[in-house]
Amino acid sequence: MAKVEVNHSKYEGIRFDIQDENVILVNILETIPYEYVGKDTMVTIPTTEFTSVCPWSGLPDFADIIISYIPNEDLVEMKSLKYYLTSYRNVGIYQEHATNRILEDLVKLLKPKYIKVVGNWNARGGLGTEVVVEYKEENSK
Amino acid sequence: MAKVEVNHSKYEGIRFDIQDENVILVNILETIPYEYVGKDTMVTIPTTEFTSVCPWSGLPDFADIIISYIPNEDLVEMKSLKYYLTSYRNVGIYQEHATNRILEDLVKLLKPKYIKVVGNWNARGGLGTEVVVEYKEENSK
Amino acid sequence: MAKVEVNHSKYEGIRFDIQDENVILVNILETIPYEYVGKDTMVTIPTTEFTSVCPWSGLPDFADIIISYIPNEDLVEMKSLKYYLTSYRNVGIYQEHATNRILEDLVKLLKPKYIKVVGNWNARGGLGTEVVVEYKEENSK
Amino acid sequence: MAKVEVNHSKYEGIRFDIQDENVILVNILETIPYEYVGKDTMVTIPTTEFTSVCPWSGLPDFADIIISYIPNEDLVEMKSLKYYLTSYRNVGIYQEHATNRILEDLVKLLKPKYIKVVGNWNARGGLGTEVVVEYKEENSK
Amino acid sequence: MAKVEVNHSKYEGIRFDIQDENVILVNILETIPYEYVGKDTMVTIPTTEFTSVCPWSGLPDFADIIISYIPNEDLVEMKSLKYYLTSYRNVGIYQEHATNRILEDLVKLLKPKYIKVVGNWNARGGLGTEVVVEYKEENSK
Amino acid sequence: MAKVEVNHSKYEGIRFDIQDENVILVNILETIPYEYVGKDTMVTIPTTEFTSVCPWSGLPDFADIIISYIPNEDLVEMKSLKYYLTSYRNVGIYQEHATNRILEDLVKLLKPKYIKVVGNWNARGGLGTEVVVEYKEENSK
Amino acid sequence: MAKVEVNHSKYEGIRFDIQDENVILVNILETIPYEYVGKDTMVTIPTTEFTSVCPWSGLPDFADIIISYIPNEDLVEMKSLKYYLTSYRNVGIYQEHATNRILEDLVKLLKPKYIKVVGNWNARGGLGTEVVVEYKEENSK
Amino acid sequence: MAKVEVNHSKYEGIRFDIQDENVILVNILETIPYEYVGKDTMVTIPTTEFTSVCPWSGLPDFADIIISYIPNEDLVEMKSLKYYLTSYRNVGIYQEHATNRILEDLVKLLKPKYIKVVGNWNARGGLGTEVVVEYKEENSK
Amino acid sequence: MAKVEVNHSKYEGIRFDIQDENVILVNILETIPYEYVGKDTMVTIPTTEFTSVCPWSGLPDFADIIISYIPNEDLVEMKSLKYYLTSYRNVGIYQEHATNRILEDLVKLLKPKYIKVVGNWNARGGLGTEVVVEYKEENSK
Amino acid sequence: MAKVEVNHSKYEGIRFDIQDENVILVNILETIPYEYVGKDTMVTIPTTEFTSVCPWSGLPDFADIIISYIPNEDLVEMKSLKYYLTSYRNVGIYQEHATNRILEDLVKLLKPKYIKVVGNWNARGGLGTEVVVEYKEENSK
Ligand SMILES: [Ca+2]
Ligand SMILES: [Ca+2]
Ligand SMILES: [Ca+2]
Ligand SMILES: [Ca+2]
Ligand SMILES: [Ca+2]
Ligand SMILES: [Ca+2]
Ligand SMILES: [Ca+2]
Ligand SMILES: [Ca+2]
Ligand SMILES: [Ca+2]
Ligand SMILES: [Ca+2]
Ligand SMILES: [Ca+2]
Ligand SMILES: [Ca+2]
Ligand SMILES: [Ca+2]
Ligand SMILES: [Ca+2]
Ligand SMILES: [Ca+2]
Ligand SMILES: [Ca+2]
Repeated sequence: MAKVEVNHSKYEGIRFDIQDENVILVNILETIPYEYVGKDTMVTIPTTEFTSVCPWSGLPDFADIIISYIPNEDLVEMKSLKYYLTSYRNVGIYQEHATNRILEDLVKLLKPKYIKVVGNWNARGGLGTEVVVEYKEENSK
Repeated sequence: MAKVEVNHSKYEGIRFDIQDENVILVNILETIPYEYVGKDTMVTIPTTEFTSVCPWSGLPDFADIIISYIPNEDLVEMKSLKYYLTSYRNVGIYQEHATNRILEDLVKLLKPKYIKVVGNWNARGGLGTEVVVEYKEENSK
Repeated sequence: MAKVEVNHSKYEGIRFDIQDENVILVNILETIPYEYVGKDTMVTIPTTEFTSVCPWSGLPDFADIIISYIPNEDLVEMKSLKYYLTSYRNVGIYQEHATNRILEDLVKLLKPKYIKVVGNWNARGGLGTEVVVEYKEENSK
Repeated sequence: MAKVEVNHSKYEGIRFDIQDENVILVNILETIPYEYVGKDTMVTIPTTEFTSVCPWSGLPDFADIIISYIPNEDLVEMKSLKYYLTSYRNVGIYQEHATNRILEDLVKLLKPKYIKVVGNWNARGGLGTEVVVEYKEENSK
Repeated sequence: MAKVEVNHSKYEGIRFDIQDENVILVNILETIPYEYVGKDTMVTIPTTEFTSVCPWSGLPDFADIIISYIPNEDLVEMKSLKYYLTSYRNVGIYQEHATNRILEDLVKLLKPKYIKVVGNWNARGGLGTEVVVEYKEENSK
Repeated sequence: MAKVEVNHSKYEGIRFDIQDENVILVNILETIPYEYVGKDTMVTIPTTEFTSVCPWSGLPDFADIIISYIPNEDLVEMKSLKYYLTSYRNVGIYQEHATNRILEDLVKLLKPKYIKVVGNWNARGGLGTEVVVEYKEENSK
Repeated sequence: MAKVEVNHSKYEGIRFDIQDENVILVNILETIPYEYVGKDTMVTIPTTEFTSVCPWSGLPDFADIIISYIPNEDLVEMKSLKYYLTSYRNVGIYQEHATNRILEDLVKLLKPKYIKVVGNWNARGGLGTEVVVEYKEENSK
Repeated sequence: MAKVEVNHSKYEGIRFDIQDENVILVNILETIPYEYVGKDTMVTIPTTEFTSVCPWSGLPDFADIIISYIPNEDLVEMKSLKYYLTSYRNVGIYQEHATNRILEDLVKLLKPKYIKVVGNWNARGGLGTEVVVEYKEENSK
Repeated sequence: MAKVEVNHSKYEGIRFDIQDENVILVNILETIPYEYVGKDTMVTIPTTEFTSVCPWSGLPDFADIIISYIPNEDLVEMKSLKYYLTSYRNVGIYQEHATNRILEDLVKLLKPKYIKVVGNWNARGGLGTEVVVEYKEENSK
Repeated sequence: MAKVEVNHSKYEGIRFDIQDENVILVNILETIPYEYVGKDTMVTIPTTEFTSVCPWSGLPDFADIIISYIPNEDLVEMKSLKYYLTSYRNVGIYQEHATNRILEDLVKLLKPKYIKVVGNWNARGGLGTEVVVEYKEENSK
């Protein structure tokens, strides 16, 4: 049997409002002072509510994001992190890039001893994608 | 101890791009003919990827949506449903309204014997919300 | 940001070998005599290994299929059912049709008091599909 | 659509009775002698019933707390630990501080070979927080 | 072996700040208009963060509370419900009374067609307690 | 509100029959020869049915006990172990002591290369207790 | 291969202290007044800590017990119930009898509209036993 | 590619010792008197350890068997049931027959008000089989 | 109460057909050539369907068996393994011996770099038994 | 009882269309450039939808496949991977070979620092098979 011919051209014309990476609210991120400087604390922040847009298909991606870090002198302020993560909502960005971008923005903000970002992206076509990126401060064990 | 004074005024100025309900792609919905007219089939379509915007807080809501229906003569075409549900993404709409709006749009499209829409919305402030709405064709048992 | 231009035309040329419904091995189905005629037994046969092909996309669909029935005089022979279900493997057929076709073929074979077929199809684009079809013998309670 | 204007000023006036850290019942903590001094025992005490107050929002936080330690000469007396943990109930304290304060109070009380406190705090705005703090006696392997 | 004599008299002197039921913020409860009057919607609001105080032991109780109702003309406003439930935090009240009080306050507020409150209280001494209370409007089916 | 006055003095007079540690059936323990001497086998014996009595409250404690060991020349005979563990049933003994006592009795019996006893005791007042004790033969790696 | 001959006669001599049913503390049971007389509340009390002794084998049985009832005028006082259930600890009683005895003692105490007792007894020889007994007040619907 | 030719003829010669149904130990079944005659008790006996032999393939089948019944005057004695079920171990019998045979043997033994036998047989070739058979005493509601 | 006298002598006379270890079909085991010699592959074969007979009680034992190995030049042929494991069905053998015997037979057959056999035996008298045995080729890392 | 004679010769004549390994679409695989060259990212791609054909039985096998890799300069393009994995659908190939073939094809494509392929194949005859293969770039730590 040949592939069924269905006119799906109407979907071609749809363009949701895909934004550029420059709308990511990196400057909204705030820190609060870590009061136990010199002592290693592992802070882990999970969320099941991350979404961005696939630049290839124009359709939204959804991920669980888990951020874990050991602070040096700064903790991330949670409400600012919420706004920061929300600002990816309509941005067209690959899953691997989004995960790495979050890592890099938080490294710049926090200068942590250690940080890991896990992005567990919902399956498309039956294939899921988990992206794990890590950063370790030089000279930290 | 008194409530700590923190200047959160900067969050006040943030306005994500909240859209009106009229951007909902109700016209994109398509049907395909149901080939077993007269026989009751229950079709259930779950998704964990629904998101809209809370008109009060300006922040996104996330829900699992489960649509169940018994067709008369029409099945919903799945790709059109995907685009329809995606179009709520930046719409400011209360959770109860969104759930009911989906029901009503699908009743108009499908004229089903029966349809139920369940919206299981993620908790805010520790309180979740599940909304269950149903429609039964008159004279159907 | 505009939708990224990616040349996916190469996927257009791929045609897996999609077969017509007439290759379904309906004639291989066998029965064995039910030795408790007159007493109601509910027999439920689940499998997590059903696959067919989507006629629209040309890509495989996967489902859990659960068959439940109350025999009159015949039980389905299990190995013949295995071959029957396997024969959908490369057939282009909609999910709703496949589920109903299994019901109808088994009604013809078994003439049961009752039979239900549940097809729980894997999600595509984040939307799953469960199809539930039932048959009750006339005059059965 | 602009953000909906809702008058929530009435919530501004609410002040639950937030207490200072000095009401924490650190002096109620008692020990009982460990009868296997020189042998390493790992004692783990989980609870799902910890609550304190967020100093920023004035609203309660809830956490699962898991305390694990290897005693030197003293075990914590369980009823005194129950009262100690309960005394955080109306204290305004950040989640990171509460977790560390519990660690420090128990280090002072028990002088253990090792102790870890895990605070797994319920999500706010879709973001959870787990705080893990550890202490190792100097010269212990 | 006789029961061990331990001096627990110090716990006798502890009095956490137990409040009277009149501090419950019943007047903070607000409604929002239900826009589908005449159509039955089941709204279910679960929380895992309810706590009050046992009047007998002076120690906190913890419960999962699940509120389900079918509105007539009013929906409960979620933030006001959050403050209402939070106000039980230091109130000395039996588990059965707390569950029933929530039901009665919401019946007065919402005049719903139906409402159920489930309180699933954490075990004490190895015995849990679940309390289920329901209200049905007269003449409702 | 002051703490409610309830007369619970009647519970004071209750004395269940608490036995001394000397009723523990240590001499009933038997071994069977290990037929693979020189080869390391890890044998793990879980039970969810351990109970003893809290010497402080006079009320029963319940635990899951998991015994794991690497034999030298002897395996514990299972029925004798069952009787041994059952004999703690009415013994007044602290949870930490019971867990260690089991370890020590089995070390004496089996002279194993390695043994670990985990006691996972049910929560009291919302606080659970897990006790993990280990023994390694000297010179074993 | 013939059945292996092992001398288990030593187990024959063991007699744990099995008590008669007359030690069950039925008189310790207390009620507290139900303040919503005329309104149906379902109270469910689960415990995973019930134990008695098998009169046939002389070895302990363990069960999860779940008591559910709709009060008329009385609630069972929880601490008295705890002592009542604990008093079965060394009583030789069949599983079916124990479950029914609990039902009958609580019917006498509470005169409830409805009561159900579920005893879910741990498996012996690979066979579990669940016993469900119910009582409905005459004339109650 | 043609089907690979593998010489599996050696498996043809294997004959495990398949027994006839007449070795089933129906006469070992014993009852004990039900002491609450006239009151409905539901007794449920699950086991995960049932095995018999497929008469077609000569290979063992494994099932979870769940027996539920409401006694009239007799309870099944558990140890006799254990031996009865064990006696199917090497019997060649179809899954549907085994499940029904257990029902019928227990109906004869117990003359119960109601009995149900569920046989949940492990999958073969990816297809599982659950068989549910019931018996209701005439004139019982 | 004294231990109840029940005449269980009839069970004494029952002798299921217990076979000797020499019926184990060790010679049916076959290998197939491993085509990636020199590269480490971990092959893990779980089954929930292992059964043998306890030589002490004459009653069947049931286990989950998990075999994991790194081949040198040979893979075990799966159908031959199935027959091999099935041949333990009526053999009287201790759980520790059965687990080790499987290991040793497979070491002889496969000469693997590494192999582990886990036998997770169902509980008897509330005590489970897990047996873990390993073999490492000399000079393998 | 002798093995039942059933004429299953009709199944012998069935030949599903088994394809040779040369239809595997290795050339469809595409890469996209990894933009964080020099930083280690672990990308994990799970799917529950892999199927191929057993060359021995002629019947389909089903597996969960999990691919994990650390890229050097290239990421696998997901849609091309989907088509690649789909092309095994009718190929007759042993489970161990299929798992290794995927590894080798991806090593050639990606030249990764590290890659692991796990194939978790559905049970046949009660025996499952998990195959784990790994590749590490020389000189990578
Ligand atoms: Ca997810
Ligand atoms: Ca979700
Ligand atoms: Ca939810
Ligand atoms: Ca599936
Ligand atoms: Ca929690
Ligand atoms: Ca809880
Ligand atoms: Ca509970
Ligand atoms: Ca337990
Ligand atoms: Ca436990
Ligand atoms: Ca615990
Ligand atoms: Ca249990
Ligand atoms: Ca099973
Ligand atoms: Ca099954
Ligand atoms: Ca098992
Ligand atoms: Ca087990
Ligand atoms: Ca699978």
